[in-house]
Amino acid sequence: MLALVGIGLDAKDISIKALEFLKNAQIVYADTYTSITSSESLKYISDATGKEIIPIGRSRMEEKLADTIKDASRLDVAILVIGDPLVATTHHIILDEAASRGIETRVFHSSSIFSAGIGESGLDIYKFGPTTTIPFWSEHYKPTSFMDVIARNLANKEHTLVLFDLNSPTGTAPMPIEQAKQIINMADKEGILALEKKVLILADIGRASQSIKYIEFSKIPSLARDLSGRILSMIVPSQMSFAEEESVKRFS
Amino acid sequence: MLALVGIGLDAKDISIKALEFLKNAQIVYADTYTSITSSESLKYISDATGKEIIPIGRSRMEEKLADTIKDASRLDVAILVIGDPLVATTHHIILDEAASRGIETRVFHSSSIFSAGIGESGLDIYKFGPTTTIPFWSEHYKPTSFMDVIARNLANKEHTLVLFDLNSPTGTAPMPIEQAKQIINMADKEGILALEKKVLILADIGRASQSIKYIEFSKIPSLARDLSGRILSMIVPSQMSFAEEESVKRFS
Repeated sequence: MLALVGIGLDAKDISIKALEFLKNAQIVYADTYTSITSSESLKYISDATGKEIIPIGRSRMEEKLADTIKDASRLDVAILVIGDPLVATTHHIILDEAASRGIETRVFHSSSIFSAGIGESGLDIYKFGPTTTIPFWSEHYKPTSFMDVIARNLANKEHTLVLFDLNSPTGTAPMPIEQAKQIINMADKEGILALEKKVLILADIGRASQSIKYIEFSKIPSLARDLSGRILSMIVPSQMSFAEEESVKRFS
Repeated sequence: MLALVGIGLDAKDISIKALEFLKNAQIVYADTYTSITSSESLKYISDATGKEIIPIGRSRMEEKLADTIKDASRLDVAILVIGDPLVATTHHIILDEAASRGIETRVFHSSSIFSAGIGESGLDIYKFGPTTTIPFWSEHYKPTSFMDVIARNLANKEHTLVLFDLNSPTGTAPMPIEQAKQIINMADKEGILALEKKVLILADIGRASQSIKYIEFSKIPSLARDLSGRILSMIVPSQMSFAEEESVKRFS
């Protein structure tokens, strides 16, 4: 059996059901490719289940998929994933591969930035357009499509949840807020966010260290020190209702 | 302290962190107003924590909010909520009320239909427009705005997650698929779904009984028997990529 196990946003966010499954699993990997895997979470899970957790980087996840699936034909193999495990396409590919070889699969859901981040913001989940991600830029890869999503959502009077890439070219590390702002500035040719536009900056959602700031986009650099090293995302609000305005005031 | 505790989609979906909190809470309510509260989940939580769980219906949730908050000023009060607790606006009102009285609040996130439902469908979460809900109709309340959301998302080449109301006029019971189809037929004046359009019908997402069907809208009545009494939602796919087409084939 091959199981994808969501470990949520915080240490001990893993479900009772998932933890019980892991106690009987033979191999437990942790996906360190598509997400930053909190060492605190992994330590807790390892202690609580008595299992060694094997970090599985990009190479093993993609190149050695066949091996992993072969193991799953005779053993219970679990792959731990931050958040909810089915949000990333990579994990669908793994499930489909396993299923096509007749291997039983299971999915353990958990808390996700999609529902928790939007929920914590106090903005109406029914008013969110498509989510987007700001990827790290490299010399030859400078995608700006995330800006099109934000612009289109604003035109449609929809809020946007904007995730910041977690996979830097030099290894897994969250995108710092200053870098995100620089990339947005370069991608935002129409100056949609440049001047007075206020956004929500979300840090460490679902953890004790959670913080949310409602701040003018241009003032983001003032947050850099506080937010250093933390997992970040942003919400670009469209037109807000009175209740939504009241709700985001808490974060001013 | 007042805590909102997400209990997720399945029995034992509650997080380790939340269960530990409940063991030390003095009052534990279960919100039976905004969601169908699985008796299996509540039994598990009650057994595991040794706490009596008090169902808190619409009257107590709204009329007796002040009492609940007064209790929370001297005791640890928890309110159990299906899925992730901050998705419904009601819960924000409770948190805001408590916070404005200087009462400490906590939120325990969990799996949600928003991330898990979209994830299980295999459709790209980045291509979903706003979610909508089909409410029960009554003699004097026949809202059709959900149909506008679906139509606009389709025009924008975006998929739509459509939730079915869980609060029937005669008490908490999930909307049956035949009733949802009837309401859609009456609301869908332009016939967007009527003929050949295929949709995904999601039942019991995150549970062992989970089923997903990719089916022509007109053929929904053939599912009625299988889906009787189950918690349902629907995804109206817009234009799909090749990978998405491959993914939904599993559900044909």
